[in-house]
Amino acid sequence: MSLNTFGHLFRVTTWGESHGPGLGATVDGCPPGIPIEAEALQIWLDKRKPGTSRFTTQRREADQVEILSGVFEGVSTGTPIQLMIRNTDQRSKDYGEIAEKFRPGHADITYWQKYGIRDYRGGGRSSARETAARVAAGGVAREALAKLAPELSITGYMVQMGTQTIDRSRFDLAEVKNNAFWIPDAGAVDDWSTYLDSIRKSGSSVGGMIELRASGVPAGLGAPIYGKLDTELAAAMMSINAVKGVEIGEGMAAAMLTGEANADEISMGDDGPCYSSNHSGGILGGISTGQDVVVRFAVKPTSSILTPRKTISKSGENTEIVTKGRHDPCVGIRAVPVGEAMMACVLLDHILMHRGQVGEGLPGKIGPTI
Amino acid sequence: MSLNTFGHLFRVTTWGESHGPGLGATVDGCPPGIPIEAEALQIWLDKRKPGTSRFTTQRREADQVEILSGVFEGVSTGTPIQLMIRNTDQRSKDYGEIAEKFRPGHADITYWQKYGIRDYRGGGRSSARETAARVAAGGVAREALAKLAPELSITGYMVQMGTQTIDRSRFDLAEVKNNAFWIPDAGAVDDWSTYLDSIRKSGSSVGGMIELRASGVPAGLGAPIYGKLDTELAAAMMSINAVKGVEIGEGMAAAMLTGEANADEISMGDDGPCYSSNHSGGILGGISTGQDVVVRFAVKPTSSILTPRKTISKSGENTEIVTKGRHDPCVGIRAVPVGEAMMACVLLDHILMHRGQVGEGLPGKIGPTI
Amino acid sequence: MSLNTFGHLFRVTTWGESHGPGLGATVDGCPPGIPIEAEALQIWLDKRKPGTSRFTTQRREADQVEILSGVFEGVSTGTPIQLMIRNTDQRSKDYGEIAEKFRPGHADITYWQKYGIRDYRGGGRSSARETAARVAAGGVAREALAKLAPELSITGYMVQMGTQTIDRSRFDLAEVKNNAFWIPDAGAVDDWSTYLDSIRKSGSSVGGMIELRASGVPAGLGAPIYGKLDTELAAAMMSINAVKGVEIGEGMAAAMLTGEANADEISMGDDGPCYSSNHSGGILGGISTGQDVVVRFAVKPTSSILTPRKTISKSGENTEIVTKGRHDPCVGIRAVPVGEAMMACVLLDHILMHRGQVGEGLPGKIGPTI
Amino acid sequence: MSLNTFGHLFRVTTWGESHGPGLGATVDGCPPGIPIEAEALQIWLDKRKPGTSRFTTQRREADQVEILSGVFEGVSTGTPIQLMIRNTDQRSKDYGEIAEKFRPGHADITYWQKYGIRDYRGGGRSSARETAARVAAGGVAREALAKLAPELSITGYMVQMGTQTIDRSRFDLAEVKNNAFWIPDAGAVDDWSTYLDSIRKSGSSVGGMIELRASGVPAGLGAPIYGKLDTELAAAMMSINAVKGVEIGEGMAAAMLTGEANADEISMGDDGPCYSSNHSGGILGGISTGQDVVVRFAVKPTSSILTPRKTISKSGENTEIVTKGRHDPCVGIRAVPVGEAMMACVLLDHILMHRGQVGEGLPGKIGPTI
Repeated sequence: MSLNTFGHLFRVTTWGESHGPGLGATVDGCPPGIPIEAEALQIWLDKRKPGTSRFTTQRREADQVEILSGVFEGVSTGTPIQLMIRNTDQRSKDYGEIAEKFRPGHADITYWQKYGIRDYRGGGRSSARETAARVAAGGVAREALAKLAPELSITGYMVQMGTQTIDRSRFDLAEVKNNAFWIPDAGAVDDWSTYLDSIRKSGSSVGGMIELRASGVPAGLGAPIYGKLDTELAAAMMSINAVKGVEIGEGMAAAMLTGEANADEISMGDDGPCYSSNHSGGILGGISTGQDVVVRFAVKPTSSILTPRKTISKSGENTEIVTKGRHDPCVGIRAVPVGEAMMACVLLDHILMHRGQVGEGLPGKIGPTI
Repeated sequence: MSLNTFGHLFRVTTWGESHGPGLGATVDGCPPGIPIEAEALQIWLDKRKPGTSRFTTQRREADQVEILSGVFEGVSTGTPIQLMIRNTDQRSKDYGEIAEKFRPGHADITYWQKYGIRDYRGGGRSSARETAARVAAGGVAREALAKLAPELSITGYMVQMGTQTIDRSRFDLAEVKNNAFWIPDAGAVDDWSTYLDSIRKSGSSVGGMIELRASGVPAGLGAPIYGKLDTELAAAMMSINAVKGVEIGEGMAAAMLTGEANADEISMGDDGPCYSSNHSGGILGGISTGQDVVVRFAVKPTSSILTPRKTISKSGENTEIVTKGRHDPCVGIRAVPVGEAMMACVLLDHILMHRGQVGEGLPGKIGPTI
Repeated sequence: MSLNTFGHLFRVTTWGESHGPGLGATVDGCPPGIPIEAEALQIWLDKRKPGTSRFTTQRREADQVEILSGVFEGVSTGTPIQLMIRNTDQRSKDYGEIAEKFRPGHADITYWQKYGIRDYRGGGRSSARETAARVAAGGVAREALAKLAPELSITGYMVQMGTQTIDRSRFDLAEVKNNAFWIPDAGAVDDWSTYLDSIRKSGSSVGGMIELRASGVPAGLGAPIYGKLDTELAAAMMSINAVKGVEIGEGMAAAMLTGEANADEISMGDDGPCYSSNHSGGILGGISTGQDVVVRFAVKPTSSILTPRKTISKSGENTEIVTKGRHDPCVGIRAVPVGEAMMACVLLDHILMHRGQVGEGLPGKIGPTI
Repeated sequence: MSLNTFGHLFRVTTWGESHGPGLGATVDGCPPGIPIEAEALQIWLDKRKPGTSRFTTQRREADQVEILSGVFEGVSTGTPIQLMIRNTDQRSKDYGEIAEKFRPGHADITYWQKYGIRDYRGGGRSSARETAARVAAGGVAREALAKLAPELSITGYMVQMGTQTIDRSRFDLAEVKNNAFWIPDAGAVDDWSTYLDSIRKSGSSVGGMIELRASGVPAGLGAPIYGKLDTELAAAMMSINAVKGVEIGEGMAAAMLTGEANADEISMGDDGPCYSSNHSGGILGGISTGQDVVVRFAVKPTSSILTPRKTISKSGENTEIVTKGRHDPCVGIRAVPVGEAMMACVLLDHILMHRGQVGEGLPGKIGPTI
């Protein structure tokens, strides 16, 4: 990860501001021969798109992605794929006040201090709108994964929103797509709706926690020591706007466990090693075990709220600010497809890296060596 | 982060195995003119060294660092600094059984699956012994920070060990160096000792949580979008052996907060912007605010325990394993100086990157522009 | 340099194909506060643009550059600058035959072998049209150099075209802009015109040699050992389409010199060290000396010629090909602004890297240390 | 290439100074399962070792390489391989004068200006002694190539030394190992010996030109646009001490050719495409064609000569210097194994990168598609 690029062999560079002409992603290193259509990428962008329910910002962006290079007759050529999304609904007047004042909790003040200049319109480059470009790039990664690792599937869902949590005893991944919160717990949807309506109407906001689960991940992915699979997933998630914590498997709770409680015992199954549990989150020593890879990340509440907050102006005067604009009461909801996209990019990158360093398949066979 | 290297302008590549001839770090990009003595690096290595109390492994390693290049007449020259630590106490016979069986919770099985070959002696490259090299490199980073950012200080300490937590009302950083657990709470030391003695005597182990605090961090550090300061700290911590979660500021708890509760309000102080609180952990939009940078990470319990665990052999047969050897009842303790070292490297790297892209100092002055 | 990106702190990623919707450059790491206008970049693009004289291809491309991000109110913000150039004159029918046959000397066959798919229209990604994106990025670098190193100037010019060479005794940089060949020798223009007319009319092509000269380069630039200034200039030039050789200072001729003949003796001048000659091309040990940095590179003749050449088809049958299309009789002419652009990017990158690792200015003062 | 590291998936970081404790290479990304013995690496080091004939410096260095990590039971494990060479014959007193004066043609003055400090003993980091580490790393690359691309062979040889050139009509690669100049022309050995004896006895020095030839290179290697195979070979060679020019195939002479003369026509042979000639040096569009890859580079004469040269002191006074020490009359001779080593590293890296991005083998079959 370096400035605006992430990845090693599958490299994504995003560009663009919230209220400039547009934004996009330069995707370099996509293997050749992958079918890529704008329509297929659009599915994921529509999942992230604002304004799809009353629980997300009412900004109206078409978020229409255009493929400018790297695809010929519907198939990737191995050259850079440029994905562009034009901005269409830039109501810059909504953001007039923030040209002079720094919104607490936003990057307004730090961009100003670092660069001495900032595009204040909608947060400029620090806007979560940048994540649309990641989602488009993640769509490319998904297409490549579909071909290179067809058994692999990635699903993101919320597990917490403020005081609301899911009931793991009702956990059902099939429910995720059926509700506006992307939760795998149909029985919780009403409570979550009531709760977020109340937050929204009061002009407040609330944090959230997202879990990502990748099934069918081949064992052997990960590039120790500093390119470990969990290291890169942690970086990928922490790079998403408003994320304050990342966990793999047992996560922070591992601090309270004993060695006995935390052990994932191994036995031999028909198709290879089996594990009695998955405290590790599918990663040991930075390398995938073949179990589900499980990542969680926490998103802080949207900093834009209707209650006035104390702040300062560029000229150093104490003042207050109320962020009107159009904002998400819980940005965590729209972080779900972003997390999925980042996970897809990281997994594809590690498949390519493994293939590069080690070759196809797993050299370490377990079992009789006759 | 790429394979065995981390950092952008200050780049550290570690090498070596637990029971090979030695291990070390190639430190590239250290600014010239920094005083570097082996004795100064040794202070930090001694902090991580095994066998310093009954609470750490009884393996006896001198961990003596040798500077092989990059330093002339006691001062860095701007060329790569090679730091080598010879292994001295390799009782390989302790590890005979693990040549054939995979220890649950260790990287034995994943290294085997990925590479088809592994140095099974003491975990080889996946051993936490690799972190000695990081600590040596972190020592170099600290010397450079002492010159380039003399107000900056980094302190790590434990805040949880299994069921034991510190009492934040008694928080005193000055106490950290006075106890074997590196805790900022003198009143908790006896309870922690009793608790860990019990764990140790039963042949068990327990997890831990470490907090790192950097004070005097200049505002403006961090390279958005994918080289954010928090992104890189998360990667740095997650790359440490046995770490399962990383938090910045409010961390995972941000999921349950409202926007009002989470806001760090800003006012103008004598020396620049002041904040009413530090939920952000000193980082907004991936750039430092000038407040304390606060990071926490959780370390899982040592997987090597005396209770037999089910596992399989290389030939795929179900079996059991008891890991005898000499192990830490709580590896979290020795992770404290490792976390500090990683933080020092990341902060120095970002100071150099900021200086490279933006130049010395902060261009964004706040206050009257007369 | 990695796939489609070059540079360390000033990083340029180009994308796009000859006959796709467009092409461009993602410029990451431009310092903030640099005035950047599309009009200023256009000057350099117009210099490279086809169809400006009878000596270049008659393809008509507006090569109009659009700035999509990273610039706010005419000034760089430190975020990625996306530069897009739409393709307008894609007469794809000209290239029908090459869908099935490989043009000798072009990358048609190697792209096919490597990727198993290729955008055959105009050479796709391997077309020299990709260099338009470099020129745009080089324009950004020039603007940054104008602010960070105002004394630095870069001039490229041809020194050879087939059998024609310049007369160094008439060397005058001021003449470069006055002729279609960018030669610093007004007396040679007529001969070169007659010669190239003859080549052009016969449907042939010819190679060329370009020299780049950077004056006012600060001493101290370059990142030994593998990021040496000459190493990176060599890579930058060799990455340009059709380039087969690169020289610094004395170049290949250094092989025949003795140590006495090659020595650049040093004496002390009013403003620092002076050199009796510049065999080194302004670079010693990979670091700039403060003298002019002098680079030469050779461009092979355009492979597209009217004489039929033997080749094979995708199905492996022997055949012949005549490349009609619209081509440059000497692509070396249009390589001049491309070389300049690459040099500007490399020099800026090294200024930023030096600033990052060492800080502003030169620490090694020569002279009295009172 | 970045500071002291080169390569993408096969990454080599060298460290060490001419007269420090030692030097070495950290080799990261070597595929697992490659047999690696110190004895095998020593063969190449011995080829570069000083003092093997009267034509090289009489410094006596054992150049004994020690493998400190990454190899287990004689086989690479996929983890970093640390190769260390202790310095043994550091007669620092030979270099006393150069502590205060800058040797013309050496990097003394530029290191001083850049860093403000330099290890003046034997040139410190800028000494050609650094290339011993490259040769060791190249030995590892050769072992990996022997397994991954067994048909590939790399041979370097001189083609010019001052006024002496080889006679291409007598070209015989089998002769290269039979003479002290590594020339493929047995008939020229006596003349070259007489010539260099004369240079040596007069205390002078002379430049040289080396050609590298890789046969059996698979088609399809190279990562356009900026990681082209020729780009990376040019960078690799230019990074070698004293190199001033690099050519691929026709090289600088391409500037004088017409398109007809330069064309390598293609026909279909039994084993795939055949070429009528190899002006391209085996690379089209940055990707290997399957022909021999041919690279040449020029090495300037050793700057250390017995004739006094004008120079300045650190305090800025005009003075003279005679470099006594023990030096090579033609460093080009010992550059042969260095060039071979760099070529081996680059080719292996590109095999791994191709495998990573595209997979094993060539997807673009030429011929009937039944």
